[in-house]
Amino acid sequence: MKLYWAPKTRASRALWMLEEVGVDYEVETVDIRDSGRDDSPEFRSASPLGKVPALVDGDVRVAESAAICLYVADRYSSGNLAPAIDAASRGTFLYWLMFTPAVIEPAMSEKFNNIEPTPGRSGWGSFDLMMQTLEQGVADRTWRLSRRSRKTGSCR
Amino acid sequence: MKLYWAPKTRASRALWMLEEVGVDYEVETVDIRDSGRDDSPEFRSASPLGKVPALVDGDVRVAESAAICLYVADRYSSGNLAPAIDAASRGTFLYWLMFTPAVIEPAMSEKFNNIEPTPGRSGWGSFDLMMQTLEQGVADRTWRLSRRSRKTGSCR
Repeated sequence: MKLYWAPKTRASRALWMLEEVGVDYEVETVDIRDSGRDDSPEFRSASPLGKVPALVDGDVRVAESAAICLYVADRYSSGNLAPAIDAASRGTFLYWLMFTPAVIEPAMSEKFNNIEPTPGRSGWGSFDLMMQTLEQGVADRTWRLSRRSRKTGSCR
Repeated sequence: MKLYWAPKTRASRALWMLEEVGVDYEVETVDIRDSGRDDSPEFRSASPLGKVPALVDGDVRVAESAAICLYVADRYSSGNLAPAIDAASRGTFLYWLMFTPAVIEPAMSEKFNNIEPTPGRSGWGSFDLMMQTLEQGVADRTWRLSRRSRKTGSCR
């Protein structure tokens, strides 16, 4: 398994997931800042947009940090780091997995570029709505999803 | 199973997936344009951000159109509308599934709001890079992923 990554990018999410799962992997650093793009056929077959992270696992090619985390968790840690396909928490898990690329990232981009949000039209609403939703989501718990219940310490 | 939806929104993707899979479901229309938000506890438990589409399936709650399509395909049509967890095409499937919320939507939003793209920093690059990647992705095929090979007509 090979992870294409670069420091200080979303590739850290994929690296963290691989460490949590405990699989063997190698890391190839892509110099995204100097050259802009790595055009090796293997890298581009995994990452059509030319972004890190990207993962090669045998015949499998996958990029986008949420997609990589989902692939690795489902394949190598199902029922543990990802709820099983028929678990009641599967929907909540997928929702919050998508929340980062679909809501947090574009809302942050608008905020930090001083762009007026269009709450009714965009999928991410606004930075304030994103923050409020995130805060409500973890208001009564340490983690949004966890195998261990905060109250009882038992697995659920 | 209940789908919260509104006309002319991304909820159409979820409706299409439910039709493809052939499950029984009911539709509840959310008037997102007049009132802005539906605050019923069931809807908000499925969609913390208050957006459509959202799906309730027994104990499962899920929102974000890509998350709903993935949940429904994995649970009710695995190996058919979604590659199995250990299939070689699983990574490619997840990548293009994420491509819509993570790349197409924010790139379109920048384009149509006349916002200068920041290709090196944003996850979506730019509108032009998004279009080029999408065009290359389907250049030699009718569908990006399909069960039926264009050349042989056999399932793969």
